[in-house]
Amino acid sequence: MTILAGEVDTEVRAELLARYRRIRGETEQLSDPLSAEDMQLQSMSDASPTKWHLAHTSWFFETFLLRPHLPGYRPFDPDFHQLFNSYYNSLGTPFSRPQRGLLSRPDLEAVFAYRRRIDSCMEQLLTQVPLISSLDALVTLGLNHEQQHQELLLTDIKHAFSINPVLPAYADGGVDEDTEDGAPPLVWLPINGGLHRIGSEGDHFYFDNESPIHQQLVGDFAVASRLVTNAEYLEFIEDGGYREPRLWLSDGWALIQREQRTCPHYWQQREGRWYQFTLGGLQPLLGHEPVCHVSFYEADAFATWAGRRLPTEFEWEVAACQLRRPDQLAGANLLEKRSFRPLTATSGQNQFLGDLWEWTSSAYLPYPGFRPSADAVGEYNGKFMCNQKVLRGGSCVTPADHIRMSYRNFFYPHQSWQFTGIRLAGDVQ
Amino acid sequence: MTILAGEVDTEVRAELLARYRRIRGETEQLSDPLSAEDMQLQSMSDASPTKWHLAHTSWFFETFLLRPHLPGYRPFDPDFHQLFNSYYNSLGTPFSRPQRGLLSRPDLEAVFAYRRRIDSCMEQLLTQVPLISSLDALVTLGLNHEQQHQELLLTDIKHAFSINPVLPAYADGGVDEDTEDGAPPLVWLPINGGLHRIGSEGDHFYFDNESPIHQQLVGDFAVASRLVTNAEYLEFIEDGGYREPRLWLSDGWALIQREQRTCPHYWQQREGRWYQFTLGGLQPLLGHEPVCHVSFYEADAFATWAGRRLPTEFEWEVAACQLRRPDQLAGANLLEKRSFRPLTATSGQNQFLGDLWEWTSSAYLPYPGFRPSADAVGEYNGKFMCNQKVLRGGSCVTPADHIRMSYRNFFYPHQSWQFTGIRLAGDVQ
Amino acid sequence: MTILAGEVDTEVRAELLARYRRIRGETEQLSDPLSAEDMQLQSMSDASPTKWHLAHTSWFFETFLLRPHLPGYRPFDPDFHQLFNSYYNSLGTPFSRPQRGLLSRPDLEAVFAYRRRIDSCMEQLLTQVPLISSLDALVTLGLNHEQQHQELLLTDIKHAFSINPVLPAYADGGVDEDTEDGAPPLVWLPINGGLHRIGSEGDHFYFDNESPIHQQLVGDFAVASRLVTNAEYLEFIEDGGYREPRLWLSDGWALIQREQRTCPHYWQQREGRWYQFTLGGLQPLLGHEPVCHVSFYEADAFATWAGRRLPTEFEWEVAACQLRRPDQLAGANLLEKRSFRPLTATSGQNQFLGDLWEWTSSAYLPYPGFRPSADAVGEYNGKFMCNQKVLRGGSCVTPADHIRMSYRNFFYPHQSWQFTGIRLAGDVQ
Amino acid sequence: MTILAGEVDTEVRAELLARYRRIRGETEQLSDPLSAEDMQLQSMSDASPTKWHLAHTSWFFETFLLRPHLPGYRPFDPDFHQLFNSYYNSLGTPFSRPQRGLLSRPDLEAVFAYRRRIDSCMEQLLTQVPLISSLDALVTLGLNHEQQHQELLLTDIKHAFSINPVLPAYADGGVDEDTEDGAPPLVWLPINGGLHRIGSEGDHFYFDNESPIHQQLVGDFAVASRLVTNAEYLEFIEDGGYREPRLWLSDGWALIQREQRTCPHYWQQREGRWYQFTLGGLQPLLGHEPVCHVSFYEADAFATWAGRRLPTEFEWEVAACQLRRPDQLAGANLLEKRSFRPLTATSGQNQFLGDLWEWTSSAYLPYPGFRPSADAVGEYNGKFMCNQKVLRGGSCVTPADHIRMSYRNFFYPHQSWQFTGIRLAGDVQ
Repeated sequence: MTILAGEVDTEVRAELLARYRRIRGETEQLSDPLSAEDMQLQSMSDASPTKWHLAHTSWFFETFLLRPHLPGYRPFDPDFHQLFNSYYNSLGTPFSRPQRGLLSRPDLEAVFAYRRRIDSCMEQLLTQVPLISSLDALVTLGLNHEQQHQELLLTDIKHAFSINPVLPAYADGGVDEDTEDGAPPLVWLPINGGLHRIGSEGDHFYFDNESPIHQQLVGDFAVASRLVTNAEYLEFIEDGGYREPRLWLSDGWALIQREQRTCPHYWQQREGRWYQFTLGGLQPLLGHEPVCHVSFYEADAFATWAGRRLPTEFEWEVAACQLRRPDQLAGANLLEKRSFRPLTATSGQNQFLGDLWEWTSSAYLPYPGFRPSADAVGEYNGKFMCNQKVLRGGSCVTPADHIRMSYRNFFYPHQSWQFTGIRLAGDVQ
Repeated sequence: MTILAGEVDTEVRAELLARYRRIRGETEQLSDPLSAEDMQLQSMSDASPTKWHLAHTSWFFETFLLRPHLPGYRPFDPDFHQLFNSYYNSLGTPFSRPQRGLLSRPDLEAVFAYRRRIDSCMEQLLTQVPLISSLDALVTLGLNHEQQHQELLLTDIKHAFSINPVLPAYADGGVDEDTEDGAPPLVWLPINGGLHRIGSEGDHFYFDNESPIHQQLVGDFAVASRLVTNAEYLEFIEDGGYREPRLWLSDGWALIQREQRTCPHYWQQREGRWYQFTLGGLQPLLGHEPVCHVSFYEADAFATWAGRRLPTEFEWEVAACQLRRPDQLAGANLLEKRSFRPLTATSGQNQFLGDLWEWTSSAYLPYPGFRPSADAVGEYNGKFMCNQKVLRGGSCVTPADHIRMSYRNFFYPHQSWQFTGIRLAGDVQ
Repeated sequence: MTILAGEVDTEVRAELLARYRRIRGETEQLSDPLSAEDMQLQSMSDASPTKWHLAHTSWFFETFLLRPHLPGYRPFDPDFHQLFNSYYNSLGTPFSRPQRGLLSRPDLEAVFAYRRRIDSCMEQLLTQVPLISSLDALVTLGLNHEQQHQELLLTDIKHAFSINPVLPAYADGGVDEDTEDGAPPLVWLPINGGLHRIGSEGDHFYFDNESPIHQQLVGDFAVASRLVTNAEYLEFIEDGGYREPRLWLSDGWALIQREQRTCPHYWQQREGRWYQFTLGGLQPLLGHEPVCHVSFYEADAFATWAGRRLPTEFEWEVAACQLRRPDQLAGANLLEKRSFRPLTATSGQNQFLGDLWEWTSSAYLPYPGFRPSADAVGEYNGKFMCNQKVLRGGSCVTPADHIRMSYRNFFYPHQSWQFTGIRLAGDVQ
Repeated sequence: MTILAGEVDTEVRAELLARYRRIRGETEQLSDPLSAEDMQLQSMSDASPTKWHLAHTSWFFETFLLRPHLPGYRPFDPDFHQLFNSYYNSLGTPFSRPQRGLLSRPDLEAVFAYRRRIDSCMEQLLTQVPLISSLDALVTLGLNHEQQHQELLLTDIKHAFSINPVLPAYADGGVDEDTEDGAPPLVWLPINGGLHRIGSEGDHFYFDNESPIHQQLVGDFAVASRLVTNAEYLEFIEDGGYREPRLWLSDGWALIQREQRTCPHYWQQREGRWYQFTLGGLQPLLGHEPVCHVSFYEADAFATWAGRRLPTEFEWEVAACQLRRPDQLAGANLLEKRSFRPLTATSGQNQFLGDLWEWTSSAYLPYPGFRPSADAVGEYNGKFMCNQKVLRGGSCVTPADHIRMSYRNFFYPHQSWQFTGIRLAGDVQ
């Protein structure tokens, strides 16, 4: 996060306030189709209840903005400090993560009252308190944080609904528009290697893990022009992909043996036909849509089977920047499109942004010279830089103004409840 | 359950309908203080959400009464057959027990609609269909089943609330009325042994596990005139009871080592004073109230420490029947009293009925000649006759017309979330 | 154990010494076919290495006889006090049970030296120290304890060898002698009920759990004339016994689902034919031999499927005593026969003693008036009186002078690595 | 592994044979202090019994050399193919790893017979069969493989012995020689960044994971002149290092909470003084010796506490090569020195080679262009390139001719049973 001295001007302040309102409103809008009971659900430790997301994002503003910076601010409810702390150990012991679904109190009404109170105080802060740029930066961080939870809210409720035998739909199960055309053929796009600048240029907001900007040496390589499709992944399954240990990383093979996995998460077969559970309920599997909810292990095994590999995160960033199109963001399948699923690639689109988070072969590690900030916000990213893999590009449930080429998402290699997909890379022959 | 042939007369039918209305109404009344979110909670596998209790008790009437016996009955929702089946494997695979808290759909409103529909059809059945006595028996079984779930509803929500750091209260934390007097001194009451009739006489409803009535040989013994109190249990703790392996059954010692237990469930110390979590929230521990929420292992270790033992279930039944007082049920601390906690014994009361389920030393086994019925209802009790201990006497959350001297409750020896307590017995010197 | 005052006479003393030598020698003889490496194996927490059995049985004499009663006795090695304590918490924290297989030191030679030293000191005690009867009783207890470990030594090494893909044989795989005749038909033997004396008469050694002798009321019943055979059990399997939940106790059904059990422990199918692992290696399954290594759950489910039930331990004792034959012990298939497997019943034999421990429906509980002794030996039996089932009659690896009609063995209902079998009982029609 | 065409000459062949004899002999010499019982021990899944190491290293030559390349070779024992396969899934399902300690058969004698037979056949292969260079390469791989198991043999038996309360010593507990002088002060050595060649130059044997040699961009940095000492690590402990979550990676903090860790593996306090378990038994902790048996999480937390960081594996390689001294290998504390413990640094030594494997901050990933070989040997390294961290430099139990600057070892971040230590790095100010 960019934290500089000096007060920001009125226009910036007004813009920030507008953004605050829009993003906070978007979170609530996403919770609209859900009942208080739905918002209570926590189906695994990795996921959180919608209500918790609504409260925690407010807690973030209360903790990092209002308590230290709004004169005379009194906490909405002292208990909330522990209840809605996610993982900031330096602020006290957070409430047990796997038990977030057991907090029926405070109830949803109280959480919405909390949000209104936070919003009203934030408006006060954003209009009346001298807004030095470090505050601006913290507010921007809080809004980006909120956007991350918008995505989690959707992936978490998808997981929770998938447990229920009635397989509820979060939204209308919009069928993919261009079902007839199929996906365009996969083309290999060559990229020239060399020393490339990696990381945020600093012209927009970025998380600390995107810094410092620095050089990486990348060799010549080729990258696929679109994501791997369900049909292509089915070939892998039908060729015995889940039964051939040589295709798998050792930990991945152990996992699929232990859990007896034979297909991606959310796939199921009924009377010989394949279906997948979506935010629109159970839907027939469409062959030309990108395969999604694969773990890193599955992505890696598929690439090995295909005689290719996954790109490094640096290769991804270089390729995505070089192949950028002017209208890229406009056409991308992001949250605003409300598709809630990856869509079939079109000939005019390379899917780098949106659709699915793309697993890279890179471990999630600090960039050279990375230093987390010394205060509690320093726990935001740095402490997770172990055992996880970097994903790039955003997904169909990522807000458009939240994603960028330098964005580094990260998950454990076994996780698959996010909208994750596969882009192949290869060495130039 | 008593199943006889022949149609019942109008008076019986009217009485049954009245009882149906009263008991079904009571369940809903118990859910009144709870929000839809509260009713969604499941804090461990042993417990179920309130909403699930509301639905499952209706499922019982639908499955065993309406589907087979109401002409033209059409299920309220076909999915409910799996969702709200508890453990009747012969009716199909029940929905995964530990995940009952993840069923946000059907929502509470739908579950209440389900109850209303079941009630309306049951009224039809009870007024219009020729009511042969086997149906009468099944309805009565269903109502007793519902009463069991009334008790579970309360113990389960107590457990769920205890996880929440804000420690919500289900009801007003009524202070024990006679706090000043203390408990009366414990008196040893001698009981003559011999061959005694054990089990239900068959004059009222009983569960199959109370039959056949049969003779048991019981020696002379003595029984305590009241339950063990918190103050007495504290002595055990302070004497190092939880650190002395010789006092414990082997499995019990292993458990308290593994879980690092040093006091009963729901007890906690704050600044040197003892508190216990109750349905009225966190309350100071009262020395003269009966100690509750102890496991069988704790009850047994306490008895060993005290140089006594627990009674067998046969001793309990013999003693309770012999010491029966005319107004026993009237004065007992049962659900209708709405105390939601065990109360200090009074001099005129021996606490055999109500207050707390009393652990006996008896394993839960079939009575000689026991045969479960051949249909699905046969899964009601028999298949649990292994690894569990018998408890007797009902608790402060047991309905008054549900309890009787021959009633056999059963739980695993490690369980402590029910209202369980300790009555000592001893051999006659 | 019978503990009386007064010194025993010379003849008793000589007889005791002879018995000591014989039993101690038998243990070592049983270890003869095993290498130091074999004797190191521990294949699960329930089992112990042979070397540990050799040492622990000596520890028993050292701890309860030599240390307190042999003047000037100095422990062989102070470390052994912790290392070879099994479960006597009152003597200090025993070495972690699941890690007994990790004690390569002391090595086997040291353990044999330990045995020789203990034997030499015990000879001294048995010849030179005034032998009051309480010492006699403790020595006898130690010898019966050693005999229990002889049986465990064999069942534990059987389990350990079964893990090894080369399936080693402990002894020659003696084929059952009378393979051609088959088992005699099962006959139902009626037994008259009434008040029966249960427990040890006190004329020979007995464990404390067989006392006090007391009366039990038993109804009329019938008992099978022999054990259930493999062929009969196969019928149960082929009739879908492992797929029908209604036949199983709830905990048993959960277990076989979780562990995906479809046949008894040690059974396996190869190319359509059934085999079982025995102390003589892998052997074809013989239909007329008694089915063995079944858990209580399997025994109970089989009985339910057969329309019968298991006997109570009281019924078993009454029947076994009434049907006793003069030459019963002589013909029985016990350890001395070195068959190491249950044998086909013969027409002149009812198999009450030897062949297999017979699961009863009784929970392992104290007899009325039972009191464990106050010292460390008091931990011998009493603290296990929870969650276990009583088995009666001894097995093919029980020493002949160790078994008797009142003997109560006990294991958890899920356990099956002992030589356990099924005898059916039924109510008289 | 370097695999080239063409037959090797006589001198090379003779040298290879001599090396074969020497390395195979060294393995057996390392097992000398152990009994057959010791060699049977497996104290955790990560470790293997000595006997298994002895057999598996022979299996490697049998499987990859003798079976395919020695005309007329017949397997020593067909069962060994499964029993002693470690993780080559493409050769069939290996025997269950956590149960290797249960293979008492084949016994030690048989395993030594197996070794003699393999050795005799290998001598035949190395003297009589035309030795094309690909065979030379496979033999060399087999010998390096054997050397890896020499190290594991020692760390595994150390772990096994540490469980035994008698704390056996594998070797004489040689006290560190220069105990009085203490460690030299830590000096920060600056290294110039730039594009550096990383990986094996190919002039000697190397594992496939050290290839391809390639360029890495490294910034300017500084590196510590020696390893972190016990005294320095104690400061971290005494400063509350294990209680301050901000110092730890998230997964590391979760681990030390769950396992209640407060010091490195093998450390223990007795009456206020620190000891550590070594291959020479329990020894007082020496402050000036390098701290060892730390997990990556501990190494990382220490570095954070010290205001420094761990080097990347590329920084390590660049620094180690630049600071290389002519007599480096000669003076290094490696297996041949038989110290079996890290030694106090001397002023003339920077400890890059030997003493302890040094955790780097790098994830274990393939070098650009890495391709595992297509046959079974391809499972050697590549499939482990996930979730592990790279360690560099060898340890006090690494053979001298096995280690080199480009060597990449790898373990999971939680593992600490290897001889692992900490070298700090820092950015140049």
